[in-house]
Amino acid sequence: MRIKVAGTGLTKFGELWNKDLLDLALEASVEAINDSRLTIHQIDAVFVANMIYGKVSGQDHLGALIASTLGIKGASFRIEGACASGGLAVHLAIQSLLAGTYKNILVVGAEKMTDSSATEIATALMGAGSQDERRAGLTFPALYALMAKAHMQKFGTTRNHMASVAIKNHYHASLNEKAQYPFEISEEKVLESPVISSPFTLFDASPITDGAGAVVLSSDSTAPGVFITGSAVATDTVDLASRKSLLEIAATKEASQKALKQAAVEIKDINVAEVHDCFTIAEILAMEDLGFCPKGMGGEFVYKGHTRLGSKLPINTSGGLKACGHPVAATGVKQIIEIAHQLQKRAGKRQVDNANIGLTHNVGGSGATVVVHVLQI
Amino acid sequence: MRIKVAGTGLTKFGELWNKDLLDLALEASVEAINDSRLTIHQIDAVFVANMIYGKVSGQDHLGALIASTLGIKGASFRIEGACASGGLAVHLAIQSLLAGTYKNILVVGAEKMTDSSATEIATALMGAGSQDERRAGLTFPALYALMAKAHMQKFGTTRNHMASVAIKNHYHASLNEKAQYPFEISEEKVLESPVISSPFTLFDASPITDGAGAVVLSSDSTAPGVFITGSAVATDTVDLASRKSLLEIAATKEASQKALKQAAVEIKDINVAEVHDCFTIAEILAMEDLGFCPKGMGGEFVYKGHTRLGSKLPINTSGGLKACGHPVAATGVKQIIEIAHQLQKRAGKRQVDNANIGLTHNVGGSGATVVVHVLQI
Repeated sequence: MRIKVAGTGLTKFGELWNKDLLDLALEASVEAINDSRLTIHQIDAVFVANMIYGKVSGQDHLGALIASTLGIKGASFRIEGACASGGLAVHLAIQSLLAGTYKNILVVGAEKMTDSSATEIATALMGAGSQDERRAGLTFPALYALMAKAHMQKFGTTRNHMASVAIKNHYHASLNEKAQYPFEISEEKVLESPVISSPFTLFDASPITDGAGAVVLSSDSTAPGVFITGSAVATDTVDLASRKSLLEIAATKEASQKALKQAAVEIKDINVAEVHDCFTIAEILAMEDLGFCPKGMGGEFVYKGHTRLGSKLPINTSGGLKACGHPVAATGVKQIIEIAHQLQKRAGKRQVDNANIGLTHNVGGSGATVVVHVLQI
Repeated sequence: MRIKVAGTGLTKFGELWNKDLLDLALEASVEAINDSRLTIHQIDAVFVANMIYGKVSGQDHLGALIASTLGIKGASFRIEGACASGGLAVHLAIQSLLAGTYKNILVVGAEKMTDSSATEIATALMGAGSQDERRAGLTFPALYALMAKAHMQKFGTTRNHMASVAIKNHYHASLNEKAQYPFEISEEKVLESPVISSPFTLFDASPITDGAGAVVLSSDSTAPGVFITGSAVATDTVDLASRKSLLEIAATKEASQKALKQAAVEIKDINVAEVHDCFTIAEILAMEDLGFCPKGMGGEFVYKGHTRLGSKLPINTSGGLKACGHPVAATGVKQIIEIAHQLQKRAGKRQVDNANIGLTHNVGGSGATVVVHVLQI
């Protein structure tokens, strides 16, 4: 499988009160198309990833809306799978390219979250979880907090380990002008911020963000850009209660093993990765479930600096969901963009040396959907 | 392109107050999987089409929810493109099969509409249209009424022509036990029912419906069932105001020409078709834009009985959206099921003689998205 990421476009992430969803989606899309050096007329299809806009604004049918506003008359689709919407849209666009039906596809992930009240957004986001757990009061911080507590109890993972994820990702974000929070934070800051759901404090959580990311994917292997060589999706139960274990995201294992096999590489070959750090524990789980470190060692692995820029395996150089921001359906597309830029040596101040093979890991809900991509130069 | 429709499942369409979306989706899915004679473990991916459930119930992430409830751990997706969601999900599932990534895919379209108030549903559905036209008060009956008025003025299309669409589709529905309105109606009934948006009366409009349809699609050409030999999507502006003409749905032309070309058949080869008759004028436009009759002659074509069961080209033998019902995202899947059954001679009392090549036509909004499939035995 050799699909090209032929162009990329990314808006600033943050509280962008002067822009609506369509503004953000168009800004990222036009940048991606220009970057690909293709014309609008060479784009055969538009895949839009979005989760909550229909709920907060009333507007659905975003595939046709964004495609037609761009002047693209080919096919258009909207894909949703909670916080994994962006990764799913990339995966489905790849299938359409591999099928030979389309040659150049624009994938745009966009979300407009900061115009609504906190209650509206929290309610909208809970659509990613199960009805029973939602009714029981289990918000997403609470669901991930259950996993964190289990991990602490079983493996001795500490609050300092978790804090180190946030500290590292804020450091990376400080080097990324697109990041929502481009500044460093101290361990004290994390540990002493208000508790949101024990054991988490505010700085364990990713924020509410506006933003959009777009990529042009092409089946033309002579196009400029990097290759996507693996793409896989796995599904688990939407509710946490039905899972075999709180200590892992099983779908991460499934999806990553499939994607690595497709790409014919091993996890030890990965030089750089963007993983789904919606909460600090999620990055720790990702380190283990992807196989970057043994089970139970994820906290120590991050704490010791093995995933910080300058180390052998920089993780979330964009700043991750935690500090670059998490415009839900844009996240999976942003991950592809960050890794593409790293492999193309376009990552500026946060460039990873010798980055030739990268991975993205995008999670929906508390692990019901996982999408993994492998990229190679 | 030769993708098999290897299994089908369809719930009753109607006001199903004792069933929720998940009940409906699972009922159709289990029936489709059993019909395909595959086991759950042979299903690699689940594509869910749904438009409004997130808005009316809060629950998103339906791909993972339905897949995991069925016990399917492969990939899962939710696809949305307003009333064309079902057709889009079938199209994308086909791409994934053609890519070789998946071998057997469950596509399920489901919608739960009758538990909400009329205002809630009308508001939710308006998400398919443009914000400007919505704010100007243009509901979907009004948008299609504009097209109907233009057609009457330009081509002399009459209220009797439009009524004949409803009369025919109710007749077909009277032969379909799954239909929401399985009874015949008179011309007087249509013309004298309350005006909903001039020139339409109540019986020009498709209803609000609960229901689900599911198909198992397979790349195994030795599987039982019929072939999908053409699948195409076209996009136009979401707002009606930006279109070149009110007299046609341009995306119908685009999508049907592509799909027919893929299938290597001509429109005159089609023996039976399901078209998107959300309003009576929409079926008249579809006759013309698909090329079944010359432009402007659609009203006369239906009125003269050329598309009634027993004629050379039966259209909407299921009863169409008008009388079988229109559970938004289920419609595109139900169309595939009806045509598959016709080609397999499984259509019972409404069986079309010598049906070997069929077509489905699924529209989103007022024509912003159109999906056309060609099926062959």
